[in-house]
Formats: sequence, structure tokens, C-alpha cells
Amino acid sequence: MDTAASVLLTDLYELTMLQSYYRSGMNEPAVFEFFVRSLPQSRNFLVAAGLEQVLEYLQTLAFSPEDIGSLQALGRFDAGFLESLRDLRFGGDVDAVPEGTIMFPGEPLLRVRAPLREAQLVESRVINLLQFQTMIASKAVRSVLAARGKQLVDFGMRRAHGAEAALLSARASYLAGFDGSATVAAGVRFGIPLFGTMAHSFVQAHQNEAEAFAAYARTFPGRTTLLIDTYDVQAAARLVARLAGQDGLRFEGVRIDSGDLADYAREVRAILDGAGCREIAIFASSNLDEYQVQALEQARAPIQGYGIGTRMNTSADAPFLDCAYKLVDYAGRPVSKLSTGKATWPGAKQVFRRDGLRGEIATDCLALEGEQDAGTPLLVPVMRAGRPLAAPEPLATLRERVRLQLERLPAPLRALAPAQPYPVTISPELQALGQQVEVRQRLMHA
Amino acid sequence: MDTAASVLLTDLYELTMLQSYYRSGMNEPAVFEFFVRSLPQSRNFLVAAGLEQVLEYLQTLAFSPEDIGSLQALGRFDAGFLESLRDLRFGGDVDAVPEGTIMFPGEPLLRVRAPLREAQLVESRVINLLQFQTMIASKAVRSVLAARGKQLVDFGMRRAHGAEAALLSARASYLAGFDGSATVAAGVRFGIPLFGTMAHSFVQAHQNEAEAFAAYARTFPGRTTLLIDTYDVQAAARLVARLAGQDGLRFEGVRIDSGDLADYAREVRAILDGAGCREIAIFASSNLDEYQVQALEQARAPIQGYGIGTRMNTSADAPFLDCAYKLVDYAGRPVSKLSTGKATWPGAKQVFRRDGLRGEIATDCLALEGEQDAGTPLLVPVMRAGRPLAAPEPLATLRERVRLQLERLPAPLRALAPAQPYPVTISPELQALGQQVEVRQRLMHA
Repeated sequence: MDTAASVLLTDLYELTMLQSYYRSGMNEPAVFEFFVRSLPQSRNFLVAAGLEQVLEYLQTLAFSPEDIGSLQALGRFDAGFLESLRDLRFGGDVDAVPEGTIMFPGEPLLRVRAPLREAQLVESRVINLLQFQTMIASKAVRSVLAARGKQLVDFGMRRAHGAEAALLSARASYLAGFDGSATVAAGVRFGIPLFGTMAHSFVQAHQNEAEAFAAYARTFPGRTTLLIDTYDVQAAARLVARLAGQDGLRFEGVRIDSGDLADYAREVRAILDGAGCREIAIFASSNLDEYQVQALEQARAPIQGYGIGTRMNTSADAPFLDCAYKLVDYAGRPVSKLSTGKATWPGAKQVFRRDGLRGEIATDCLALEGEQDAGTPLLVPVMRAGRPLAAPEPLATLRERVRLQLERLPAPLRALAPAQPYPVTISPELQALGQQVEVRQRLMHA
Repeated sequence: MDTAASVLLTDLYELTMLQSYYRSGMNEPAVFEFFVRSLPQSRNFLVAAGLEQVLEYLQTLAFSPEDIGSLQALGRFDAGFLESLRDLRFGGDVDAVPEGTIMFPGEPLLRVRAPLREAQLVESRVINLLQFQTMIASKAVRSVLAARGKQLVDFGMRRAHGAEAALLSARASYLAGFDGSATVAAGVRFGIPLFGTMAHSFVQAHQNEAEAFAAYARTFPGRTTLLIDTYDVQAAARLVARLAGQDGLRFEGVRIDSGDLADYAREVRAILDGAGCREIAIFASSNLDEYQVQALEQARAPIQGYGIGTRMNTSADAPFLDCAYKLVDYAGRPVSKLSTGKATWPGAKQVFRRDGLRGEIATDCLALEGEQDAGTPLLVPVMRAGRPLAAPEPLATLRERVRLQLERLPAPLRALAPAQPYPVTISPELQALGQQVEVRQRLMHA
């Protein structure tokens, strides 16, 4: 799958537009902004994520001779234009909110200022990278809020949408506060702590559960979580209680992966405690999401950790964000779009965040880039002339940012249920510019 | 993103189970089957897809010295086991239904027979590859059914879940009957026809629409589809009508990307026809899915083609399939799982399909592998001893298979609305084996 992450992972129109710009000699500075138009019904806020991968992409963007050969073979591009791609690099400036920042609809998460062709070319992949991790972090953080400090592990590689989704959903969920992932490549690539238990097939391949449990415990002394629902949960729990301590066998935990998890957990807890195995933890999985975790927590089910898979890795209740990467200024001329339901604010923008009296996040103001405001500007310079201004932030830093921002988020927004939207105002200067540009554009195109 | 598609893209437990099997010396032949447990509410059938990528994965599976170094660094694996991975290759047999075959819940799409460790190791990635493309093909085919032969183009790269999802959703939707994709890498990698128009930013970067339209048409003579909803759809349509033919400008089509598409299309059609531009086609996009395409078709909106993006590439109404890769036989011993709601049929299986009197697909029988049946066996040998038995089928062949099978699908199943489930019976032999294995397992674990 070598073409997957190449510069050719783009929409055809980026390249056809580039050829037209090339022929017209258009390459003045352009400003594009990435933002989410509206939240999915079930979300109260966004957690920005994916910037590290965007900067990596921009920094390494280049057309190889093979790429140019492939484009030539499509028969749509002329020789001069193809030749111009040989030396094309991204040499622009990027301002962005740091990963882990809590954001709201309409607010730019990233702003690109570059010669038009460079800024346009990167559109498809910038959206592809930012929307996915932002969507996953914004979904995963809800399980973090629901789990009240219980262990959370990403179990969803198998039903993630392909390889990169598996890897980046592990990253985005860890960033949002998960404790780790089962995906080995994510541990290797990002240093995310790895967790794993066993599959039903492991139990089935052995002659019986006793043999399977003992074999696993001998292979991983002290690091053994046993899957106990292959045949009969209570029988398996009694077996675990019987085996524990025999021949030096030690079990860290048991996992339940089907049925009524609260009922099973209580029965298993009683069996284990009755046999003096209070130290063996109960871990639950099986199509979990934040709502089920919340219900299990509210029911005080004796569960120490949750494996959250598919519904988190696919953001199953909202598998896409209504987001865009839009031109807001070309050659010093602010522009906007008037399309029905998709109108945009013109001009390079900044988001200023003001705190409330108790240090909580209180209100944001969407303003023009150069405006003065009492709030804290959220977009900060991250790349100049194609070079990142700093090394990528460690994931530990991003996790801590999310944690601190969640503490400062008004309580209703931290709930799973939809809350009154967070207030984002538009600065008078931006409103005035918006009107001015709209009038100009309507006159021009009437 | 080099670790994305490596052998380390797997769940940790695959490797910990392997280490336990290694220590126990367990490596007898195992049979695993991949199947979908149940259909999403909004689906009547599945279109099998992803086999080519699975076979490619199995054929090239190997641990590089770097992979082994990475595993060693995790501190969970012993030297002997890590050494054993050096020579591990997939040398097993695979039987599968050809891509593009219409399938139903409970039916295996793929069966792996290999030494236990090899068959187990590949679980996570085999599911990851098969579930995604099968899900997308099964979603995309619904737009194909709704569009009644109109042009359909995959527009969804930007909101697909990462790079591989973008690439493979282009493949799966083309396989299902789409006419092409906007994703350049998919065109290059799979030979899928590429389509593209222009972005709003292209119109905005020019001084006005006239300049933008003329510049694009001069760059791509005769291959120009103009985006006409940046400012005012009717005004832009009048402009297109005025420009057409001037200075030799020729336009292939116009695209509308917002608002009420049926209303806009009628107004634009009237404007274009009134100016004698009957040959300029109307192309529609904007959060489309099969339901909107059906509504537009039923309303006889004068639209010649649809760009379908996000909702297809993420299978937005059902972004995952309830699927599994389950052990059904180990060392000649059929096994099953009794977990609540997740029970499985034991033994290596085959699906026999019987036709009705008019050649339609009439009924399937899930049976044991060796059974005789009047129906056509759907699973066929595709790999023996780790080697594929044939070159990958061309996408044209897969598209033709889907087309022919759709013709033979009973009409209620071809509708978008949920239909009476297609009849899949269980052979008496399989039923008997299922009972026998369940009794044996319950006795053993009581």
C-alpha cells in the first residue's frame, strides 16, 4: 500500500487547479483555515488533534520522479506543469492550536499562509489528517469523562477503517486520556503503553479452560488477564479462584466480553472475593462506548477497567465531522463563500479565549488575526517557511493539556448529554469585514 | 507512517498468545473463519470485498529484524520466541468467496487453514482488511442501485479515516459499481478512472467567476466541469451559458454543491437549455448518500451524475460490521463458542447457494465443508501453502460480478428499505455437529 500516504493521496482537482494556476501564473500568498462547521448532535466540544502528522506531511511533501511519471500517465497534465512539480515543496507558514486544546464550532484549528499552489495542494490530506484525529479524540474523551478514572484501553484496531486509522485512533485516544492500546504498532511508533489479554480461540485451542489459563499464566507470570466467557462465566470464575496460588500461578485480572456486564461482574466479584482473590481485577469489553461505561459506573459495577473498541475507533455515532479547509484571503484580498448553508467568514482569523472568575473557560471570541483582545490567543505559530518551530510535543504533554482543560470546562459541557452551546462571539471588526466582503462579492457577481 | 501496514499492525494478544503456544509447543492445524454476525439495520445484503489485500498481506507477512527489535524492547517476549518469529511466514491454505459476491449474515467469507500460530497471528489484520472493504462495498452498492445508471464518483478522500481508508474505499466503491474516484492515488494504484472539478477556493482566488471559468476551460479544453455555487447559482449558470462558445470555450458540465439540489438543478437546466447549452451536464454533490440520490432520482431532477463522499467512505449510517474471525477447528477437533449473543457454529464450513426458477439467488445453505449439496459452493480455494492460486482478479471482473449478481438478487433485497431476510438454512449435519460440540463443551466445563 505504498501509494497510501504519498503526495498523490489527494483529490484530482487539487492538481488540475494547480495546473490552471501554473498556466495563469497565479501564486500570490493565500490563507486557508481548517475549522469544524458544526458539532455532531452528541458532542459538546472538540479536542484538537492531528497537528503532529500535518506538520510531518507538510515538511516532507515532495513529488518523486515516479509520482510525476504516474501523473504524466494520466494524460491530463502538460509537461511544463509536471516539471514545475519537481521542485515543489511546502514553504509556507502555519499557525495552529496546540493538540489537546478544547475547541468549538466555527473556530479555526489551523491556518496556512503560503503561495497559492502550495496552500491549495495540501487541502485534501490536511483535512484527512486533522478531521480524523480530532474526531477520535473528541469521541474518546467522552469515555474518559464517563469512566471516572477507571482504566481505559483502545481495543479497536480490527474494525478501524484500515491501517492508518488503527494507528492514529490509538494515538488520538491516548492523547484524550486513555491509558493505552492493544495495537502493537501504536506502541512501537508512539510509545503508547500496550495492553492485551487473550482471545476466545486461545481457550478453545486448549483441551479445557484450566489448561489454557495455566499455560498463559506460566508464560506471563504476574501479567495475566484471563478471558472467562468462552463457555460459562461463573464456572470460569470458580476455576480462576481454584487455580490462583496453585503451582505459583498468579492472575492479574479476568476479562468479560459478552452478556450483561454489570451482572456478570457482580457474580464474578462475589466468586473471587469469596475465594479470597480480592486482588484479581475485573476488566470488561464488548461493544462498549461512553454511554455503556457511564451506565456501568452509575450502577457501581465492580469493574476496574474497560476495553473500548469499534465504537470509539470509528466514532460510530458520528463517524465524520462537518469540517472544511477554506480560502479566507488571496493576495491580501479577504474572501468568503456565500453558498447556502456553507457561508464562511473572510480574512485570517484568531480565536481569543477568556476565563471566568473561577479560572474556567468562559467565552471565546472569533476575531481577525491582528486584533487586540483581553483573551488568550489560541492559534500560535508552529511552522515558518516550511520548517516547524519546535519538535513535536510529547504525548504526555498533550494528555496533561487535555486533563487540565477538562478541569476548566464548565460542568454541563463535560456531560455526555447535549448542553447549551459554549458561547463563541464574533468580533465587531470581523462582522464588519464579513458584511463588506459579502456586499462586494454580491455586487461583482450579480 | 511506516509502521502502519507492517506485521506489527496487530493486537498485542496475538503475539502473547503466540508466545504461549510456542512455549507449549502448540502448532497443530487450525481452521478460522471470517463472517459477519448480523447486518446493520439499513442493509439487506453484503458485497464481499478486500480479498486481494488479504492475500497480499498473507503472502508478504514477515518480521524484519527491526520488528523483532521493537518487540524485544517491549520487554514481554523471551529470546527463543522472538527468534522463532524470524522465519515465520504464512504457509497456510485459504478458501474464500470471490470479491464482489453477494453474501449474508453468518456465512463465512473466508476460511484459513494453517498451523495454529500462523492462523492466529493474522486475525487482527485480516479482520481489519475484510471488514472495511466489505462494509464500504455493501454501502456503495446502495447508491449504485439508487442512481439508476447515473454517473457516481467517490468524492470522500478527505473525510475517510486516514490514508488507507481513502485508498481502499475508492477501490471498494468502484468494485461495487461507482464510475470512478477523485482520489489520485487510487487511480494510480488500482487503475480506477479519475474525476475532478474545481474547489470554491479556485473561484474565489480569481477576481470573478468569469475569469475562473475561462482559465479552467482553457487549461482543460473539453474536460471542464465548473463549480457554480460559490456565490449565486443562477447568476453563475447564466454566466456559463454566456461564456460557452465564446473564444472557443467548451464546458462539459457544471457542479452544484449546496442548497436544494433538485430545485437548483431544474433552474440551472432551464437557464442552460434556454441558451442552447443542452450538452452541458449537471453534476451534484454535498453530503449525498443513497437516500438523497434516490429522492433526487424519484423527483426526476435533471442531474447526470453524483459525487458521493463522506457518507459512503465512512459508511456513515453503519460505520462498522459486527464481524469476527473465529476458530472452528483445532487439530481435527471442531470447536464453538457459547458466549451470550456470540455463539458460533463449529467445524470448517461451506456455503451452498441454490438458484430459483428464474435464475435468481433463492436460498443458501450453511453446511460442513465436505458435504454434498445441489447448490453451488461459494468458497473456493484461493491460496495453498501460502501461495495464491491465481493472480488477483481485475477490478473489471469484480465489477461485472457485482452487476450480474445484483440482477439475480430478489427485488425486495435490492431496495433501500429493510426487507424480509434472505433465507440461509443450516444443514442437518452442521446442526448435529453444533449440538454435539456444545454438549461436549458444557460437560467439560461444567
